[in-house]
Amino acid sequence: MSAILNAGKPTSTEEEMASKYGFGKTVACAFEQAIERVTAALQAEGFGILSDIDVAATLKKKLNADMPAYRILGACNPALAQRAIQAEPSIGLLLPCNVLVRQIAEGQVSVEFMDTESVLQLVDAAGIAALASEVRQKLERVMQAL
Amino acid sequence: MSAILNAGKPTSTEEEMASKYGFGKTVACAFEQAIERVTAALQAEGFGILSDIDVAATLKKKLNADMPAYRILGACNPALAQRAIQAEPSIGLLLPCNVLVRQIAEGQVSVEFMDTESVLQLVDAAGIAALASEVRQKLERVMQAL
Repeated sequence: MSAILNAGKPTSTEEEMASKYGFGKTVACAFEQAIERVTAALQAEGFGILSDIDVAATLKKKLNADMPAYRILGACNPALAQRAIQAEPSIGLLLPCNVLVRQIAEGQVSVEFMDTESVLQLVDAAGIAALASEVRQKLERVMQAL
Repeated sequence: MSAILNAGKPTSTEEEMASKYGFGKTVACAFEQAIERVTAALQAEGFGILSDIDVAATLKKKLNADMPAYRILGACNPALAQRAIQAEPSIGLLLPCNVLVRQIAEGQVSVEFMDTESVLQLVDAAGIAALASEVRQKLERVMQAL
């Protein structure tokens, strides 16, 4: 019944959060739907997904441990990645931009983005700060589009 | 001729380097051999490879750009990853531990490791500093084994 009442309404459970190294929000939908939505929103900003690590499945397989769904998507905008690598060849150690999708409760999925402005402060090369800012703005638009 | 003269000798071109966010060394071997060696050395320290991004192939496909071989391996020690996630659920934004393997010249391959002590300073949660130090020590042993 509550599902019917809530259908299509903005939910009060969507909330944004930020830390020293990431920002994101909680969306009210099924886990797979969150993955689909963020994949489409990333694509609209020019990011493909180059890696997709299913951490929960890995820990189940390796440690027989149970945990809620937890996936790390590695997002990459090829043109921006090329610029970053030209400026700083070792920057691949901090790439791609991680997008963390994890189940926090029934019908509640957290979608978080690496804060490139924060993480890439570790890199001294010229031009990286501007690039990090550009990527962060794109990822903020991705978050808003969810 | 020089290849024959150098065969099996320790090379003077192997050198270690470190930055604010990584450390590594240059090894004198073919690119694929470097990948095999670092994969085996990681395995000996309990790290599996959960992602393998061929950046050069991606930029060729997406931008038709040519660059030397450049791969980002995502290394993960399941037990340590589990501890990290339990301490800080958002830490997946900074996982897995990247190992960057890139061709820097003919027969010269750079193998670099994310400096977890440095990168994970962004995380305030209790226990993460000790964990980051443990991972860094393991990755230093991997580097020494190359």
